[in-house]
Amino acid sequence: MAAPLFDRLVAAAGATWPAYTRHDFVLRLAAGDLPEAAFRRYLIQDYLFLLHFARAWGLAIYKSDTLSEMRRAQGLVAATLDVEIGLHVEYCRGWGIDPAAMAAAPEAMATVAYTRYVLDRGLAGDRLDLEVALAPCIVGYAEIAAERMTDPVTRLDGNPYRSWLEMYAGADYRALADEAKAALDAQFARRGGEARFPALAASFAAATRLEADFWQMGLDAAR
Amino acid sequence: MAAPLFDRLVAAAGATWPAYTRHDFVLRLAAGDLPEAAFRRYLIQDYLFLLHFARAWGLAIYKSDTLSEMRRAQGLVAATLDVEIGLHVEYCRGWGIDPAAMAAAPEAMATVAYTRYVLDRGLAGDRLDLEVALAPCIVGYAEIAAERMTDPVTRLDGNPYRSWLEMYAGADYRALADEAKAALDAQFARRGGEARFPALAASFAAATRLEADFWQMGLDAAR
Amino acid sequence: MAAPLFDRLVAAAGATWPAYTRHDFVLRLAAGDLPEAAFRRYLIQDYLFLLHFARAWGLAIYKSDTLSEMRRAQGLVAATLDVEIGLHVEYCRGWGIDPAAMAAAPEAMATVAYTRYVLDRGLAGDRLDLEVALAPCIVGYAEIAAERMTDPVTRLDGNPYRSWLEMYAGADYRALADEAKAALDAQFARRGGEARFPALAASFAAATRLEADFWQMGLDAAR
Amino acid sequence: MAAPLFDRLVAAAGATWPAYTRHDFVLRLAAGDLPEAAFRRYLIQDYLFLLHFARAWGLAIYKSDTLSEMRRAQGLVAATLDVEIGLHVEYCRGWGIDPAAMAAAPEAMATVAYTRYVLDRGLAGDRLDLEVALAPCIVGYAEIAAERMTDPVTRLDGNPYRSWLEMYAGADYRALADEAKAALDAQFARRGGEARFPALAASFAAATRLEADFWQMGLDAAR
Repeated sequence: MAAPLFDRLVAAAGATWPAYTRHDFVLRLAAGDLPEAAFRRYLIQDYLFLLHFARAWGLAIYKSDTLSEMRRAQGLVAATLDVEIGLHVEYCRGWGIDPAAMAAAPEAMATVAYTRYVLDRGLAGDRLDLEVALAPCIVGYAEIAAERMTDPVTRLDGNPYRSWLEMYAGADYRALADEAKAALDAQFARRGGEARFPALAASFAAATRLEADFWQMGLDAAR
Repeated sequence: MAAPLFDRLVAAAGATWPAYTRHDFVLRLAAGDLPEAAFRRYLIQDYLFLLHFARAWGLAIYKSDTLSEMRRAQGLVAATLDVEIGLHVEYCRGWGIDPAAMAAAPEAMATVAYTRYVLDRGLAGDRLDLEVALAPCIVGYAEIAAERMTDPVTRLDGNPYRSWLEMYAGADYRALADEAKAALDAQFARRGGEARFPALAASFAAATRLEADFWQMGLDAAR
Repeated sequence: MAAPLFDRLVAAAGATWPAYTRHDFVLRLAAGDLPEAAFRRYLIQDYLFLLHFARAWGLAIYKSDTLSEMRRAQGLVAATLDVEIGLHVEYCRGWGIDPAAMAAAPEAMATVAYTRYVLDRGLAGDRLDLEVALAPCIVGYAEIAAERMTDPVTRLDGNPYRSWLEMYAGADYRALADEAKAALDAQFARRGGEARFPALAASFAAATRLEADFWQMGLDAAR
Repeated sequence: MAAPLFDRLVAAAGATWPAYTRHDFVLRLAAGDLPEAAFRRYLIQDYLFLLHFARAWGLAIYKSDTLSEMRRAQGLVAATLDVEIGLHVEYCRGWGIDPAAMAAAPEAMATVAYTRYVLDRGLAGDRLDLEVALAPCIVGYAEIAAERMTDPVTRLDGNPYRSWLEMYAGADYRALADEAKAALDAQFARRGGEARFPALAASFAAATRLEADFWQMGLDAAR
């Protein structure tokens, strides 16, 4: 049996993958010494990111060939607009970030780059292209949190970012990431073929680099 | 105060509008003497139509500029995938139409023409273009049912199509149509300008003609 | 070596293919007894078709991954806008069809259905989906003309439609069709995989049916 | 008579506009003391930019409502693929940049951000949205070069970047920029309305910021 597509994409990305998943932003977040300004900047831009994430899954509804494909995309739009954005707003309020100010913040270049890259892959290509470009985000966040949770250097007690780690390492998010991995395999089985792998791997690596730039954008706010 | 955009579009469509809303298919449905084969054909194609209707609102999520625009589109995707398609399947079962056979039926040319016309307007233009192309369907069905309900020729007792008339004349559907009319005005206020009216009116008229062709496709099954 | 993708798509389409390529419209055109009204209707709608054909190749430029893919699509936009539309206008003038009237003619449902179906395949899917949906037109016309040219029933002397047959049977058009066939194979090699074949075959068959409807729309004008 | 749309967009952008047009990269290029590494980086990324610029005008062909709109977009695809890319390759060869290496270079985040932002505006909105997002580039380059040419600090003799300045200050490029300005007015007259101005201005300002980031990406290569 072939390795899952996600695992193959990660392997093909080489050093690009850990440069994202073990980015300084992540390591310091897990150690609890990430500067607050960096996290705050990340939170605001992540809110703006979520709006385009919902747009991407709206696009996936349009690009669906079957009712079940539509329903999966619809579920992710709902998860984003009905749950995640609300949680995010509440969470940010806890950090003293005003929802209206957050919504009015200008998008960082890193936010524009990753979100619009994903949307362009989705429109220029097919739904497999779209889901591959989204995978570093959806699946990556679960991997990042899980890996940090098993790292002895990670500190939970008194870590101001503990709830972030626990959310993405939690069973709910893990299930969502597992579904996304399974969907990649299903799409690849239906619309793939080995010939597509090199282009998909290039797109996955490019999206992963843009995700690392997103962490860096957060860190840069603390300089 | 300006007339609602929908009313202006209907006025600009001239005789094209009643050729759709008072099409023989509709009049005979209200009179209860529409051939069953015509209604059956319509039901099957309307199911296929709904899949593309959900895709159109998925596209509208992608094309949204604001969270509230996204949420309205999301609500219509949900109304279609979670409610309408289920009701439709149940309703069709009542007419002895097997769900699997319905899903596997080839699309009629009229179904292809209207659904893809709408999607193309939405992709080539902006969200206002998309909503205008959808209006003959969403708002039109409410107008059609309401008008027939006040027509003394309409027969409800013993009319096999009574539930169809009552659903689209009902308060729930009327509210949905009213929201769609209000959304047209909101979009036109935000993205419009008188200069766009002629092109919007041409698109509305073209979509209306394609909706009339859809009724005709039903009738033709009974020849 | 695998059979060319186009040949496999034709084989999978079964009776749908000859229902298009040997449609009555075509046979009567070759015999020279197609009613003039039918041909005139076809010519006008074919002009409107060409505008969307150019849009489809513009879309293909957007959907290109490589410079050479872009250039092929650009070449087809140029062939359509710089050559074909001009020839078409001249040709129609020879049939007494006024260019302005032609441009202002409403699109027939069959024209809307085929053109928008193609554009939707291109936007919902990838460039391979787009080229497959265009193939019944581009490659089909060459096959149709070539087949009729070898048919003893075909009459060239005094046939008012002779130049149509000769154009699509000519070396220039044949080369364009051959390029389109080769491009299908190249796209399938790069983005395909056997798993995609059933969906591509279904799309090709649907597009072929819509092309047959296009001939029928011409014939219907003569009733 | 109303001010040209471009002038209004520039005025609305406030300090964002000169932060782009008088960016350090530009001033040092005009003074002749821009580090070579900065210019080289810019040249390579500008090549990658051009590929997406051609895609954007391919998209504009798809989004055209009229033959003349299509032809203008087609002309810009041709100008890019047939002329600019060739000139660019030649020019880069003069700077010792190998064409194959250039084509294989990874896209900088700034390149991804601006190009995909433009494409997303074009797909989410209409052709006016697309042309507004492209204007800081097309029209901006002519303004930048013209302004530098009248600046006494600018040095042409012995300036290694002289040909760059002369190309964008030249009559050919000025004509292309003037056409783009006129097209903005035409699109705004046809699809605009004052209500759209704030959103268009926000998009223009965002695109302008991304263009300034593009200069900065060049400069950063010399650090």
